[in-house]
Amino acid sequence: MHVGDRPGLTTPAAVLALEREHRRELIDDLATEEPLEIRLAGGSQTRSLAVTMRTPGNDFELAAGFLFSEGVVSSRDDIVGIAYCVDLSLDSEQRYNIVTVRLPGYMPALERLERHFTVNSSCGVCGKASIEALHVRAQPIADQLQVSYDFVAELPDKMRSAQRIFASTGGLHASALFDKRGNLLALREDVGRHNALDKIVGWALLNDRLPLRECVVLVSGRASYELLQKSVTAGIPIVCAVSAPSSLAVETAREFNVTLCGFVRGSKCNVYSAPGRISA
Amino acid sequence: MHVGDRPGLTTPAAVLALEREHRRELIDDLATEEPLEIRLAGGSQTRSLAVTMRTPGNDFELAAGFLFSEGVVSSRDDIVGIAYCVDLSLDSEQRYNIVTVRLPGYMPALERLERHFTVNSSCGVCGKASIEALHVRAQPIADQLQVSYDFVAELPDKMRSAQRIFASTGGLHASALFDKRGNLLALREDVGRHNALDKIVGWALLNDRLPLRECVVLVSGRASYELLQKSVTAGIPIVCAVSAPSSLAVETAREFNVTLCGFVRGSKCNVYSAPGRISA
Repeated sequence: MHVGDRPGLTTPAAVLALEREHRRELIDDLATEEPLEIRLAGGSQTRSLAVTMRTPGNDFELAAGFLFSEGVVSSRDDIVGIAYCVDLSLDSEQRYNIVTVRLPGYMPALERLERHFTVNSSCGVCGKASIEALHVRAQPIADQLQVSYDFVAELPDKMRSAQRIFASTGGLHASALFDKRGNLLALREDVGRHNALDKIVGWALLNDRLPLRECVVLVSGRASYELLQKSVTAGIPIVCAVSAPSSLAVETAREFNVTLCGFVRGSKCNVYSAPGRISA
Repeated sequence: MHVGDRPGLTTPAAVLALEREHRRELIDDLATEEPLEIRLAGGSQTRSLAVTMRTPGNDFELAAGFLFSEGVVSSRDDIVGIAYCVDLSLDSEQRYNIVTVRLPGYMPALERLERHFTVNSSCGVCGKASIEALHVRAQPIADQLQVSYDFVAELPDKMRSAQRIFASTGGLHASALFDKRGNLLALREDVGRHNALDKIVGWALLNDRLPLRECVVLVSGRASYELLQKSVTAGIPIVCAVSAPSSLAVETAREFNVTLCGFVRGSKCNVYSAPGRISA
């Protein structure tokens, strides 16, 4: 299925295209979806922490961003190294689906992690416990960043022009990070929108750019609680979404003084919280 | 935030609508997103199994469908009762965010469940372990259901006309189940697409309609591995998606002889697997 050993962003598949009276066979490029297992190594111990279904690419950033968002690591110095699996008994595809993050010291208390991830089922967050944990970990965002309405309105076009993949599969979510002048700092894509944002946060962590003050993030789809949780943890003052936010996303944005813009499309957008950062 | 005690499908929020020179305040209806904790009770034990971020409504179906999809229960008889939390020390909103499913016998071996859900992080599935577990639990689908191309092409309109909510929030995923004559059997909506499908499966389980032979399901967004996993477990022979499938969704559909249609829009669609069920 893959060209070479390493899975790519897209996977070709034969498809029967139907249209009224017509049937024709063609090759479609699908967004690649593969499991990524994130392992944690500390001292002489290694354990499996989580498995996420993701689009291969920027896997080290994904692992780092996930661990940061979940509060397992808090800075670049908390990570000694990140590597693909070196178990040669596994086939190469599986080796590229396992990433081990090595911590400088001993393994953190397993019980705490168990409890944290056990309640972590269908969407990567864990309800009230997660919401309370966010209050312990994160502070309301004090950043006084100011951008204009035009700045926000131009973001989707900037993201789309950087997204060569989206056009070919229609199956990838994207997150794009911009600086306060509107320059694109990083763009990441994934079948899972939480993964695309984890890759952005992981990029920032590994490049020692956290917290992301004076930055704006744009996500391609809807804004859920989980995306706000990750943005708040990374310190991003302005979060924009092409589609609708959920009630809990808005509630979280208000609690943490994040400016949340939804339906950022063409010549309009809705601001759900902290509108002072958007000038006319 | 809610009208009455029980959270609704939508939550009103004040929003600042920006458009070039104009700013005006209005009230937007957001898709409600709240954590739902699923607890399992067996004998004298009760334990928390999972928390999912969901849109309130059909919570018992969601809990039943989730447990079925994960292999914890396999029929209506495996469930003695489902109830909201009766702990009066919790505020009413929290009580409606906890559902307990009572099993007829003792609690299943906790260790097996721990292992199962511990690796269950960012998107409700657990990689190779989950893919292998699916092979143990589910058989390739032998159903010889035949539908026409027109049958498939008409599904999105049927779903949309049944979706009053979507128009008002733009923030909900939907799953719709149809019989072989094209009659709508059930429609469920949620901020999480996996939840919308779990609600459909739970509805079928609680109404003793599983496996869903001679049925067709339509999902509003993309088709991921997780949606195929749930469809296969429920025995659904034809799965249609308005948007693109992922590579692993197509791979899974082919392995389990599911007819997977993607980009079902207007006058065309793509068939990725088992095309014999779609006649001209």
